[in-house]
Amino acid sequence: MDKLRIGVIGYGYWGPNLVRNFVEIPGAEMIAVSDLRIERLAQAKSIYPSLQTTTNYFDLFDMDLNAVVVATPPTTHHNIARDCLEHGLNVLVEKPLTLTSDDALALCNQAKASSLTLMVGHTFEYNAAVHALRKLMSDGDIGEVHYIDTARLNLGLFQRGLNVLWDLAPHDISILLHLLQQPPVSVSAHGMACVFKDIHDVAYITLLFPNDVLAHVHVSWLDPCKVRRVTVVGSKKMVVYNDIEAQEKLRIYDKGVDGPGLSESQDDFRCSYRYGDIIIPNIKLGEPLRTECQHFVDCIQKKEKPCTCGMEGYQVVRILEAAQRSMSNSGHQEILEW
Amino acid sequence: MDKLRIGVIGYGYWGPNLVRNFVEIPGAEMIAVSDLRIERLAQAKSIYPSLQTTTNYFDLFDMDLNAVVVATPPTTHHNIARDCLEHGLNVLVEKPLTLTSDDALALCNQAKASSLTLMVGHTFEYNAAVHALRKLMSDGDIGEVHYIDTARLNLGLFQRGLNVLWDLAPHDISILLHLLQQPPVSVSAHGMACVFKDIHDVAYITLLFPNDVLAHVHVSWLDPCKVRRVTVVGSKKMVVYNDIEAQEKLRIYDKGVDGPGLSESQDDFRCSYRYGDIIIPNIKLGEPLRTECQHFVDCIQKKEKPCTCGMEGYQVVRILEAAQRSMSNSGHQEILEW
Amino acid sequence: MDKLRIGVIGYGYWGPNLVRNFVEIPGAEMIAVSDLRIERLAQAKSIYPSLQTTTNYFDLFDMDLNAVVVATPPTTHHNIARDCLEHGLNVLVEKPLTLTSDDALALCNQAKASSLTLMVGHTFEYNAAVHALRKLMSDGDIGEVHYIDTARLNLGLFQRGLNVLWDLAPHDISILLHLLQQPPVSVSAHGMACVFKDIHDVAYITLLFPNDVLAHVHVSWLDPCKVRRVTVVGSKKMVVYNDIEAQEKLRIYDKGVDGPGLSESQDDFRCSYRYGDIIIPNIKLGEPLRTECQHFVDCIQKKEKPCTCGMEGYQVVRILEAAQRSMSNSGHQEILEW
Amino acid sequence: MDKLRIGVIGYGYWGPNLVRNFVEIPGAEMIAVSDLRIERLAQAKSIYPSLQTTTNYFDLFDMDLNAVVVATPPTTHHNIARDCLEHGLNVLVEKPLTLTSDDALALCNQAKASSLTLMVGHTFEYNAAVHALRKLMSDGDIGEVHYIDTARLNLGLFQRGLNVLWDLAPHDISILLHLLQQPPVSVSAHGMACVFKDIHDVAYITLLFPNDVLAHVHVSWLDPCKVRRVTVVGSKKMVVYNDIEAQEKLRIYDKGVDGPGLSESQDDFRCSYRYGDIIIPNIKLGEPLRTECQHFVDCIQKKEKPCTCGMEGYQVVRILEAAQRSMSNSGHQEILEW
Repeated sequence: MDKLRIGVIGYGYWGPNLVRNFVEIPGAEMIAVSDLRIERLAQAKSIYPSLQTTTNYFDLFDMDLNAVVVATPPTTHHNIARDCLEHGLNVLVEKPLTLTSDDALALCNQAKASSLTLMVGHTFEYNAAVHALRKLMSDGDIGEVHYIDTARLNLGLFQRGLNVLWDLAPHDISILLHLLQQPPVSVSAHGMACVFKDIHDVAYITLLFPNDVLAHVHVSWLDPCKVRRVTVVGSKKMVVYNDIEAQEKLRIYDKGVDGPGLSESQDDFRCSYRYGDIIIPNIKLGEPLRTECQHFVDCIQKKEKPCTCGMEGYQVVRILEAAQRSMSNSGHQEILEW
Repeated sequence: MDKLRIGVIGYGYWGPNLVRNFVEIPGAEMIAVSDLRIERLAQAKSIYPSLQTTTNYFDLFDMDLNAVVVATPPTTHHNIARDCLEHGLNVLVEKPLTLTSDDALALCNQAKASSLTLMVGHTFEYNAAVHALRKLMSDGDIGEVHYIDTARLNLGLFQRGLNVLWDLAPHDISILLHLLQQPPVSVSAHGMACVFKDIHDVAYITLLFPNDVLAHVHVSWLDPCKVRRVTVVGSKKMVVYNDIEAQEKLRIYDKGVDGPGLSESQDDFRCSYRYGDIIIPNIKLGEPLRTECQHFVDCIQKKEKPCTCGMEGYQVVRILEAAQRSMSNSGHQEILEW
Repeated sequence: MDKLRIGVIGYGYWGPNLVRNFVEIPGAEMIAVSDLRIERLAQAKSIYPSLQTTTNYFDLFDMDLNAVVVATPPTTHHNIARDCLEHGLNVLVEKPLTLTSDDALALCNQAKASSLTLMVGHTFEYNAAVHALRKLMSDGDIGEVHYIDTARLNLGLFQRGLNVLWDLAPHDISILLHLLQQPPVSVSAHGMACVFKDIHDVAYITLLFPNDVLAHVHVSWLDPCKVRRVTVVGSKKMVVYNDIEAQEKLRIYDKGVDGPGLSESQDDFRCSYRYGDIIIPNIKLGEPLRTECQHFVDCIQKKEKPCTCGMEGYQVVRILEAAQRSMSNSGHQEILEW
Repeated sequence: MDKLRIGVIGYGYWGPNLVRNFVEIPGAEMIAVSDLRIERLAQAKSIYPSLQTTTNYFDLFDMDLNAVVVATPPTTHHNIARDCLEHGLNVLVEKPLTLTSDDALALCNQAKASSLTLMVGHTFEYNAAVHALRKLMSDGDIGEVHYIDTARLNLGLFQRGLNVLWDLAPHDISILLHLLQQPPVSVSAHGMACVFKDIHDVAYITLLFPNDVLAHVHVSWLDPCKVRRVTVVGSKKMVVYNDIEAQEKLRIYDKGVDGPGLSESQDDFRCSYRYGDIIIPNIKLGEPLRTECQHFVDCIQKKEKPCTCGMEGYQVVRILEAAQRSMSNSGHQEILEW
């Protein structure tokens, strides 16, 4: 099979990682990079002399490419992705897919109509620890999921024109969608713009999923500690996924409450606590972005739907939209119908 | 000055700690313990043979006591405290003061009318680390407070007839009142009853304080890890108070964002991050309950208002009431006027 | 069976813990406490009014006791224990048993001749985590033991007339004897007296056990961190026992090197590393001293040899003696024949 | 000033890091790489197409180079470095400089006679945290140094023909030389070959420095945890340098014993403990190897002696030689005269 000819649009913080990975993937050939800043293009060229570079991404449409990655600021995602699809290219868009759910849906429909692959860069779904966690859940080891609590905190990086909700929460929401395999039925959010007017830098999001599964997401650009944590509380096991740990990313706790259950009355209130062993599984960790790029290549070649398909990107954007509305409305609960 | 003659009503989990502390305080004399369970009274008697014991707390009113501590289940707090005040006794009530704000206010009025001390056992306000944190804030070291995030998590202990909100959140809310020195203007809450029907075991509370200070409280009886953490994010410093740490309870981070400030437009979006030293102050830790008991004795003898006075107990109960209403109402924001 | 009548000699730092435990053990009755300081005796009396107290431990010999615990400074252990045995009492002596191996052996012989129980307070052998570790080893889970590394560090407490070797190392050496079930064949030690002339406050001890098992003990009164750690490296598993952790005291690592083995030549140098799961077993933790006191009572009543018998106390003292000689002699290796 | 023309001999584990750094240093030009394995050369070429490559390092002598880095297995260091110096090249040799002190001294003399720079890759001396620690010591903040304890542990990597002493201890010994600014007066060592015959995989080294400063080094290839720790205990402060921590590498403890001092008799035994704040300084961390490579370039250009000069390399090798002898001789103390 011929190598996929790849272009990358946007060579800022994330672009170099994308280029490096596609260079190393046997089934792909890194052809061109586009960025508005010539110094960024020069930087790319210094490392990969054979790369073609341009400040106008329309030039990429003349290079016989098979696919592009859109790694530009989120405000530009929709227009660039639309143009690329229009020119018959398979597209991987960095998260968030777009800034409105209408735009996201339009891209999905456009890709479908053209039989092109549309994938969104929800990187954490390609993280080996998230995979292991998902497997524990699908294998039934965790039992019934009670609730999931996530936190993604650090100091910075403030971004122009994007609040912390749109910057950090796509990671957690996509992880939740991946773990629970269905979208939430309602969302509420609270937040605060502490440093810059109207740019929320801390947000708390409450999501209700089917079967009374509660999820809560805490994102912040204003925390002294770097935190990337997901806690899944199930009836059989509890699991903490701590992405900051270099090696010991998952801890599986054989802990729980063995009570008479929800159906019993309070009069018969008895319960016992189970404190069992903790297991830290050895997980073979690779670079999640590498897995993601490889998956993009594979999906195009095999004409398969990506795990992080356009419709998942649409779901994330719609949840963010609703959270944003709730946050502007004193945490009023937004109902989501799918 | 004569020693204060003390009685303790309720000798369950917390009662023995109260008795032990009053035994050791020079200005107090532990006279009697009341509990419905004779085996608990026998246990008390075996350690302190000179203690008087009774299954009827009304017997305490004939013992010429100066003060009692109410350490019975929360549902009984109001009636017992009311009876004690009626019999001219100064009263320390364990948290929460009562289960309704009307009851709490009635106790406050009753104590005031009788010139008796009414104090509530918000123990964490007597914790040396909380004091050190409060001092950092009042000294201006932290700058303007942006937001405060707290978490109090563990596995168990489920209590009959009380959900996690009323069991754990009084600690965090009293800490917030102590740190910010004013009550919140609104409260919203979300939660879930995962194990027992209608008994919420996880809750998230969002509080808005004057001057746009946000606070968020996470309490859970269903977490694999024991967590007791308060993070204060200020414009000059950030502080994490981790009560689980044996020694290093406070970490003061010289970190922040030095931006153009809230008044600037996004067009002039520039900011720099400050990453300075971390200081872990040496804090002389005593037993907070000892400080609390001593404070109760001192306030009675000096006729001074306790730090954790009845009115603070009332505030905590009113906030919990509002949070409970919000939680039953999809997180609808409750406005609090004081 | 009648309750054992117990006396405690020495009511300093450790004595109150001993008294409290014997008070709570059904098979024992705490009769008397002896200490040279009347204020210590008054303190004991204030908590346990029925206790008899005396400044002269010979008074205990007229109280019809069955057993005494010697918790005085180590310099006095030998004489007091000898007197107690002479008066027909079973004896538990705090560590170290004596300050010379001759004295230790004399006590053992005296106890044997009188058919009395002589036990030494090597408390860590009654620690549930040490038990679990020993079981892992005896069950073969760890494989062949390669080496054991221990560290017991803190700041202070300097003791008059005793260096860090005699104060802290008895714990580690008794743990090693318990884990390996045999005494070492040689010992070397290095140390330094940093703060007080001639009182070593840091020491490193190297012990060689049969079958080429290496052990190394680091003890220090001059470390900024409190450390109590034992690492057992075996051919199948590696285990870290961290006594500072409140709950997660043991971590069992399924890690190792699967090489061609010792018999192979370097020319055929190939090996693979095994990185498996980590298991943190749930260990039901009690107070080790309680287990120890109960064991003392049981051994007397059942006429059984204690786990931490006098001869083990003798072994520890002889190893310490040899380590002390080595330390004074530039780390010269001392051979131990048993 | 013209750019230094650089060659790298040995493109195994460390070589690629060296090449990458010299490529990025403005004052240097990466010209050629030599390695016996053509697949390694192909790998280098694929990343840096303009690099010259050869399996025979003698070819480098015809390329008008100014300097080479020797990153081959330690057994080859002496011969290759000697050849390079003979051909008038400045040389940076990876640690350990050689396997015998005679060889090391010969290289030093050869470099001196030829006025060439001979530097050894003791990378940790270019680590910003080590620099900060050294500065605390030279500024007098730590007071008199009592002792230094180091540990460098992990699982693997076993190396052909080199034991753990020669593989890992050069790091710790060079750190000690840098911190204390003088060589030790004696060395003792104990160790064990657990997995492969005659290849020691765990070693404990005791070094005595002038002024009764004790140092102890623990190195192991057989530990379940990755540890890289240096503890400096001084009379005023204690410092822990933990290289495993991503950010918080130094912790400065204001702790100590304020006693009557070494001159006092035991009869007057009194001391007080100082428990002050802990400071975690913010240290701007760069890549130590980058600093090292830049220093090599600077030293050549400015004709200055490197911090990690050949003579320091000689000192490290002589200490290792003595430790090896001691280890083979039951820990017999080796006296070092300089």
